[in-house]
Amino acid sequence: MSSDAMTAPKALAFDVFGTVVDWRSGIIRDSAAFLAKIGRADVDAAGFADAWRFRYIATMHAFRQSGRAFATLDVLHREMLEDTLRANGVDPATLDDALLADWNRAWHRLDPWPDAVAGLTRLKARFPIVTLTNGNIALMLAMARHGALPWDALLGAEVTRAYKPDRQAYLGTAEVLGLAPEQLCLVAAHHSDLAAARACGLMTAYVHRPQEYGGVQAPDAAARQDWDWAAENLEDLADLLGCR
Amino acid sequence: MSSDAMTAPKALAFDVFGTVVDWRSGIIRDSAAFLAKIGRADVDAAGFADAWRFRYIATMHAFRQSGRAFATLDVLHREMLEDTLRANGVDPATLDDALLADWNRAWHRLDPWPDAVAGLTRLKARFPIVTLTNGNIALMLAMARHGALPWDALLGAEVTRAYKPDRQAYLGTAEVLGLAPEQLCLVAAHHSDLAAARACGLMTAYVHRPQEYGGVQAPDAAARQDWDWAAENLEDLADLLGCR
Repeated sequence: MSSDAMTAPKALAFDVFGTVVDWRSGIIRDSAAFLAKIGRADVDAAGFADAWRFRYIATMHAFRQSGRAFATLDVLHREMLEDTLRANGVDPATLDDALLADWNRAWHRLDPWPDAVAGLTRLKARFPIVTLTNGNIALMLAMARHGALPWDALLGAEVTRAYKPDRQAYLGTAEVLGLAPEQLCLVAAHHSDLAAARACGLMTAYVHRPQEYGGVQAPDAAARQDWDWAAENLEDLADLLGCR
Repeated sequence: MSSDAMTAPKALAFDVFGTVVDWRSGIIRDSAAFLAKIGRADVDAAGFADAWRFRYIATMHAFRQSGRAFATLDVLHREMLEDTLRANGVDPATLDDALLADWNRAWHRLDPWPDAVAGLTRLKARFPIVTLTNGNIALMLAMARHGALPWDALLGAEVTRAYKPDRQAYLGTAEVLGLAPEQLCLVAAHHSDLAAARACGLMTAYVHRPQEYGGVQAPDAAARQDWDWAAENLEDLADLLGCR
């Protein structure tokens, strides 16, 4: 699907976790290794990864309402890791701090989906490509170097001081780019993210990632709308947007 | 010169105007074209460029003391352009806004020094390379796409909300990167910038740019110190830092 009447965007802003990188496989892999290291190989690593990620989703949606001062996602991920450990009967205070820090950096080491680098490279030839992510800059920088992601700029929560789906995350990113909201297109695998972007006036491009949750339905499936573009992956999006 | 005892930095943060790109040639070239377009080919374009730039230097040093709320360099450059026009007897209110906006974007179109892309590419293979610039993100993004500058992240005033030489510009950049100040190295062609970075604990790498001011002495020549590294250009810096 593509809207023939759509003007081309002036820039593409990407959700990252789930859209560009496969967070679940990476968090399962690293969590399995660390669970074994702390003598808890009995804990299901996939369940652990999902529990960690669902804490993140809940935290993001409630962040503004919580009244808490801005903290980076590295800080929040660490708190959620410790909560997830406690939920599995492990007191994080008994663990080595360097081990916990390294476990938390699993988010820095996520691998791109197989189409991501080729798709982004083609899209970059025509459009500025930036992140619009809740991940902080140091996290995105490490991930980009790990996976050779060719971003033009690392934007998102740490620059706008607002977490998606807060409107300021979308509007502030357009402003930093010197664009009107309607000149910017969010690219995301998540209907809830795209819905929030559309409510701010952004263009929307959906990318289908059926394996993001290991093949089960995504938690925001009900937020589906008819997006401006809908692509099977980032190479397909490059096709839809007329990139070589 | 290089300090044998120095530990390798964890990341390199670059001054951009003058260190990576040749602002003077670009501003002279564009200003000559715009001066002709407004019927003022009699104004010396080199003098115009220098006057614009010296307003910038004075503004940056006085910004914190001025008590003014943060405004991006695109906004400040535009004000300085209008001041420079007035100093040449031109009332900017009589000119087309789109022309002034395009003239102001001359800073987005600056060309890299001949060694910059090759040097940065070699350095990037070993170190994260980020900007630590007073230029705003949209400006840096356009410049990077114009000149193929392979930055890992665009950092500086717009992220830290402080203009160099304010300490927060240096300390805030290290913090965003998750580094202690002494793990970060500023790369700059300006002694005053390096002196401010060293006062914050950063490592320092000087790059010699004898043509930055068209061959005349830089205004901060007296701030020279014995920097941790001193390179003839960015390829030479890659050699000094052991990059292939």
